[in-house]
Amino acid sequence: MPNGLNDEELSALDAHWRAANYLAVGQIYLLDGNPLLTEPLRPEHVKPRLLGHWGTSPGLNLVHTHLNRVVKARDVDAICVWGPGHGGPAVLANSWLEGSYTRTYPDITRDAPGMGRLFRQFSFPGGVPSHVAPETPGSIHEGGELGYALSHAYGAAFDNPGLLVACVIGDGEAETGPLAASWHGNKFLDPLHDGAVLPILHLNGYKIANPTVLARLPSDELDALLRGYGHDPIHVAGDEPADVHRAMAAAMDAALDRIAAIQQAARAEGAGTSADGARRPRWPMIVLRTPKGWTGPAEVDGLPVEGTWRAHQVPLPEVRTNPDHLRQLEEWLLSYRPAELFDDTGRPREQVLACVPSGDRRLGANPHTNGGLLLRDLPVPDLDGFAVRVDAPGTETHEPTRVLARLLERVMADTEERRDFRMVGPDETASNRLDAVYAASGKAWQERTLATDEDLDRHGRVMEILSEHTCQGWLEGYLLTGRHGLFSCYEAFVHIVDSMVNQHIKWLRTTRALPWRRPIASLNYLLTSHVWRQDHNGFSHQDPGFVDHVLNKSPEVVRVYFPPDANTLLSVADHVLRSRDYVNVIVAGKQPTFSWLDMDAARAHCARGAGIWEWAGTEDGSREPDVVLACAGDVPTQEVLAAAQLVRHHLPELAVRVVNVVDLARLLPEKEHPHGMSDAQYDALFTPDKPVIFAYHGYPWLVHRLAYRRSGHRDLHVRGYKEIGTTTTPFDMVVRNDLDRFRLVMDVIDRVPGLAVRAAPVRQLMEDARLRHHDWIRAHGVDLPEVADWRWVG
Amino acid sequence: MPNGLNDEELSALDAHWRAANYLAVGQIYLLDGNPLLTEPLRPEHVKPRLLGHWGTSPGLNLVHTHLNRVVKARDVDAICVWGPGHGGPAVLANSWLEGSYTRTYPDITRDAPGMGRLFRQFSFPGGVPSHVAPETPGSIHEGGELGYALSHAYGAAFDNPGLLVACVIGDGEAETGPLAASWHGNKFLDPLHDGAVLPILHLNGYKIANPTVLARLPSDELDALLRGYGHDPIHVAGDEPADVHRAMAAAMDAALDRIAAIQQAARAEGAGTSADGARRPRWPMIVLRTPKGWTGPAEVDGLPVEGTWRAHQVPLPEVRTNPDHLRQLEEWLLSYRPAELFDDTGRPREQVLACVPSGDRRLGANPHTNGGLLLRDLPVPDLDGFAVRVDAPGTETHEPTRVLARLLERVMADTEERRDFRMVGPDETASNRLDAVYAASGKAWQERTLATDEDLDRHGRVMEILSEHTCQGWLEGYLLTGRHGLFSCYEAFVHIVDSMVNQHIKWLRTTRALPWRRPIASLNYLLTSHVWRQDHNGFSHQDPGFVDHVLNKSPEVVRVYFPPDANTLLSVADHVLRSRDYVNVIVAGKQPTFSWLDMDAARAHCARGAGIWEWAGTEDGSREPDVVLACAGDVPTQEVLAAAQLVRHHLPELAVRVVNVVDLARLLPEKEHPHGMSDAQYDALFTPDKPVIFAYHGYPWLVHRLAYRRSGHRDLHVRGYKEIGTTTTPFDMVVRNDLDRFRLVMDVIDRVPGLAVRAAPVRQLMEDARLRHHDWIRAHGVDLPEVADWRWVG
Repeated sequence: MPNGLNDEELSALDAHWRAANYLAVGQIYLLDGNPLLTEPLRPEHVKPRLLGHWGTSPGLNLVHTHLNRVVKARDVDAICVWGPGHGGPAVLANSWLEGSYTRTYPDITRDAPGMGRLFRQFSFPGGVPSHVAPETPGSIHEGGELGYALSHAYGAAFDNPGLLVACVIGDGEAETGPLAASWHGNKFLDPLHDGAVLPILHLNGYKIANPTVLARLPSDELDALLRGYGHDPIHVAGDEPADVHRAMAAAMDAALDRIAAIQQAARAEGAGTSADGARRPRWPMIVLRTPKGWTGPAEVDGLPVEGTWRAHQVPLPEVRTNPDHLRQLEEWLLSYRPAELFDDTGRPREQVLACVPSGDRRLGANPHTNGGLLLRDLPVPDLDGFAVRVDAPGTETHEPTRVLARLLERVMADTEERRDFRMVGPDETASNRLDAVYAASGKAWQERTLATDEDLDRHGRVMEILSEHTCQGWLEGYLLTGRHGLFSCYEAFVHIVDSMVNQHIKWLRTTRALPWRRPIASLNYLLTSHVWRQDHNGFSHQDPGFVDHVLNKSPEVVRVYFPPDANTLLSVADHVLRSRDYVNVIVAGKQPTFSWLDMDAARAHCARGAGIWEWAGTEDGSREPDVVLACAGDVPTQEVLAAAQLVRHHLPELAVRVVNVVDLARLLPEKEHPHGMSDAQYDALFTPDKPVIFAYHGYPWLVHRLAYRRSGHRDLHVRGYKEIGTTTTPFDMVVRNDLDRFRLVMDVIDRVPGLAVRAAPVRQLMEDARLRHHDWIRAHGVDLPEVADWRWVG
Repeated sequence: MPNGLNDEELSALDAHWRAANYLAVGQIYLLDGNPLLTEPLRPEHVKPRLLGHWGTSPGLNLVHTHLNRVVKARDVDAICVWGPGHGGPAVLANSWLEGSYTRTYPDITRDAPGMGRLFRQFSFPGGVPSHVAPETPGSIHEGGELGYALSHAYGAAFDNPGLLVACVIGDGEAETGPLAASWHGNKFLDPLHDGAVLPILHLNGYKIANPTVLARLPSDELDALLRGYGHDPIHVAGDEPADVHRAMAAAMDAALDRIAAIQQAARAEGAGTSADGARRPRWPMIVLRTPKGWTGPAEVDGLPVEGTWRAHQVPLPEVRTNPDHLRQLEEWLLSYRPAELFDDTGRPREQVLACVPSGDRRLGANPHTNGGLLLRDLPVPDLDGFAVRVDAPGTETHEPTRVLARLLERVMADTEERRDFRMVGPDETASNRLDAVYAASGKAWQERTLATDEDLDRHGRVMEILSEHTCQGWLEGYLLTGRHGLFSCYEAFVHIVDSMVNQHIKWLRTTRALPWRRPIASLNYLLTSHVWRQDHNGFSHQDPGFVDHVLNKSPEVVRVYFPPDANTLLSVADHVLRSRDYVNVIVAGKQPTFSWLDMDAARAHCARGAGIWEWAGTEDGSREPDVVLACAGDVPTQEVLAAAQLVRHHLPELAVRVVNVVDLARLLPEKEHPHGMSDAQYDALFTPDKPVIFAYHGYPWLVHRLAYRRSGHRDLHVRGYKEIGTTTTPFDMVVRNDLDRFRLVMDVIDRVPGLAVRAAPVRQLMEDARLRHHDWIRAHGVDLPEVADWRWVG
């Protein structure tokens, strides 16, 4: 232990902590009338609805106070991820104390009236949320849904070599799966190019209503667990403030000394020397064990509160109506001795602010927490150098993701110095045929390597861990601190992060109304290994519903793309990599797929988002077509094209229009989504009243949900994935789900008025083809040759 | 270490292992023509599409072989959860060897023709999936989506004191969040009433394309980690079969001895003696480190395969076209010396079967893995004893979940001896106002307890851990082994298990086509603390989209209920607790809610699923109403009733019908869901052409997606949650989302033809009320008195 704090330092830290505690309690309880308790507390000073979480707040205040100290003393560039985001009052209190709150919200002044407004607005209609939120200066982490603090912290630290990312992990959050997985982030943290993550495990002992697992572990098991996670834990425990201050200051110093030593060693060694086989550093962490609701009421109505789960939210629930509670609240507030903390105008006294850093060093003002301030445009090269040549539609196949990989390789190479682009994926980068990027950057890996390993790189920016949660959390943290990235994932398993993407969309949506939050790079998903091509894996790997999930969310934020071939994928990727503040979902195959459009046509088609493929239809332009064959997705596009060809051959008199949709939100009304089409545009594309046979990549009812307001909706017939999956051939999958070319032709015959009798023989031919498929595949285990060898003949 | 195997035992175990390996390779590669390699291998013997995962199979075969040995030797009642479910060939091979496969599928005989069919069907169109799946005898775990093996294992072990649940955890799966969280299951396992879980961490070193984190940890860190998880690890490592057999046999014996000792000690002590404060047992586990693709080709095309990630799927990819690969495959298969393993008829020789247990002791035949065989009806008491008295609709409020809790308490009490009912929840049972159940059973907890703790119980059947994943996994494992349960969860955060419920729905859907799989109890969700009442928590806690998610899945399996009050919740709960093979989602509030129906009316209404509330409307029965006010969900129901009252007062001439929907799938066409209504039924309820103003609990477009085929759809206007959330008052939430009573009356005026001019003053009144609300709430922070004090006047 270092020599420790002198009495003056100790008093100042304690004053800051008491001030923060006072402000936290004030926010939970008080309106704006009596913030400094300059008059006796009366019921009308108290909010009519008492909302907020006290339990975690004193611990967060302690951490903030001690982070302030080391940041100021060492001039550290630091941010903090507040995992127990429920403790909004604490983080707001600290931001107000250090002045970053007033800088962000000038009407919440650092004086008594401002303090009053700070109190009143908290959890009040029209005010601010009770959690750490986008509205909170200095935050990159909402913390309402627990589990993601540590992965966010690692994401922030990657490629920020000068940054310290402290991360408070509550012992409740520590029970979640995503948090449990994210401890292994230290196997991916490069001490040369990345900053440091300092986990602070805060054991206050309780969740909402139960003790926590980690707080009740025997101390040897807890220590073993944290060492097993690769950390050197420093334990701080107590309930006597002065002792805890001393121990916490010493722990912070020890941790920062150790971090500095690790980084100096790695940086002295440099990138040139391979340390393969060298022992990964044991990064420090702090275990802070303090009572839940510390310094709050010890007992309420005869039941213990401080140090128990009863301190979780509002310890004194009846302050307005129960004079005992009112008296207890007043005593509680006065126990912090506010007159020592704030002068007559309500401004924090000098001693309170002694530990507070200034300017951008303040935790509530560090620009890394408002990443858009630091964001640079990504250097996306011209697409022509990566496009595939398409002399005629549908004659050659390419693997779209493999084509995209060359573009990504270039982006990766062009950001080698800047280091502001990363790719994440759950061990699927190569499986998703993106492995070309390894030529520009290997896979981040700080563990031992073996001679047989390939593409592992201590300094790599391709991140692979078999945890979608960790991938998502890393990428979110990286984007929120002003960098760029891409998440490639098996389509089905991106549902694992449904709830995480919810929260990120909410974050982005909220920041739209906060001008001081600068736009950040979009969160880009490349969903591949999709439902139609799970030849190896079958039913468990088949689910196209993530698109449905995100389309329930804020339309300002969400974009969904189904590029049907390699060049359209390039065009979409180019667009999303340049975009800001969106969640972009691209669904694209990795298997060989016919290319339909050359690069110019792909660009034009993607710019429109949906369009008629004249070359594929049989309209003569003089009248509306008899039927529209529409498609979205690579496999449906192929089936629609094959169906169009069958119709042309067997029913040459029919005027068929082929429409391809890349940007799914185009189907929505313009009032409901920024990309939505007007009714006139929709009718121009799909006709107001002709049958539309729509082959869609995912659940068919999604298309109905998007298009139900359109006048032509009654004659819109959608084919898609009907949850019929198994391990089988590609064509068998579309047949089982009635999305195959033969079925689509039957749909045309069934839907175009007057065709039923005349085209009955053609319909029979189609049925026969489906039966032939059925018998063939069971005998041979592969698709019908007429299907396997099919190609487009214009 | 025990004395170990003698040579004969070793040879027999090795023979069994080799046979299983042979059969695994055969399934991946061979058609049915030459299963015993009695003739030279030719291309036409080989499948045209080579699909499957070899890498993990030899390790799974080793585990199965050694489980066989101890099960037989000790007559243990054991099952195994195969986390690396991709290794389907291994589990199928073992089931075929022990005869449980033939028992289940009589045409796959245990002879050469049957072996041929076993090979051919694997991953073949019309055959069986490549993963361990519902079709696999002895499995309760699909394993395609990784992360849930260990929580499934704990779920199976709870309340099965005689059962050993082995659980193979791949080192890939171990990186996932859900798996990482589930290690702490041992803090909830009661050695008295529960069985044992034996985790077997299989470190084969690689995922799809990368080394794994745990396999590359320094050995001291790995050991610390597993001890930190509360286990005593037994390490087995090697690549020389005889050595590994000896070590594995010794490890199994040591583990089972230790488990027996723990259980004997706990059971001698009994339930009477509290062991609070006593040290939780350190359960054994096995760490098995063997090469990926062990015994497969060491090298292919000059690159190392065995022991690397290249062994993950199909090590020799070109067997049909590359003579070298064909030769290598033949050598590989012959390396197992099939002639020693199978007699001329293809039947496994005596030595191969020496380790195999018989009858229900076979891992593929244990009835716990076909839980429906063991399932007993849950004793659900008559509802009348729990119903709330409702003399008139809408005059008194009750907390629906608190009312339900008394029913659950009775179920919990009535299963005290049987121990076949559990409740799970992420630390929210009390928050969700279900704490009455603690009177019948405390919360499972094996850690230290403190004097201030309440309701913790070493033998409890209420399970609380702050991990939705773990809750879900435990409950799935419990249900799949033939017991009953309920998962109560905050509505927003059940999205965390979106992907898990996908897999469970798929499982149930698949078992519908497997007559030998007996129906199991439904997976029942009670979603509460819902979107409209997140007064404390705001936007991050507001999301009603889980219903949308599950309604994308197999309609045979999914049921969704919105009981509007306490008695309807009782009726719905009664129904779902008795049901089989469904995933039931109940959305119900915990806050005081008006009761509308007495118990008889509630029963009748829930039986219909949707119905007219005549008492609430103003129809005279002589003609169709002018407008239908429909509702689903407790808050929307209240707003619709309040709107109906406003209309009655202000527009008394209008004939209004009020329809309440409990069972959401009723809105679907009967062809699309078993609960769907015919068009005639729908029109009788909603009219074919009158305006319908539908106040829905969740995203409004879901109602459109369900009802878009109905003739009245054009005049269906849905209000619901529009993703506008924050920390605010209950009424402010509905106003912000245009679901409030005033807005609904405005909708009536806007939609009923001819009303616009006549009712303009009423419309203005409604607008004024909304403005009054706006000003009031910002001034006072609570809802308008006219809203807060509103009650129904019939």
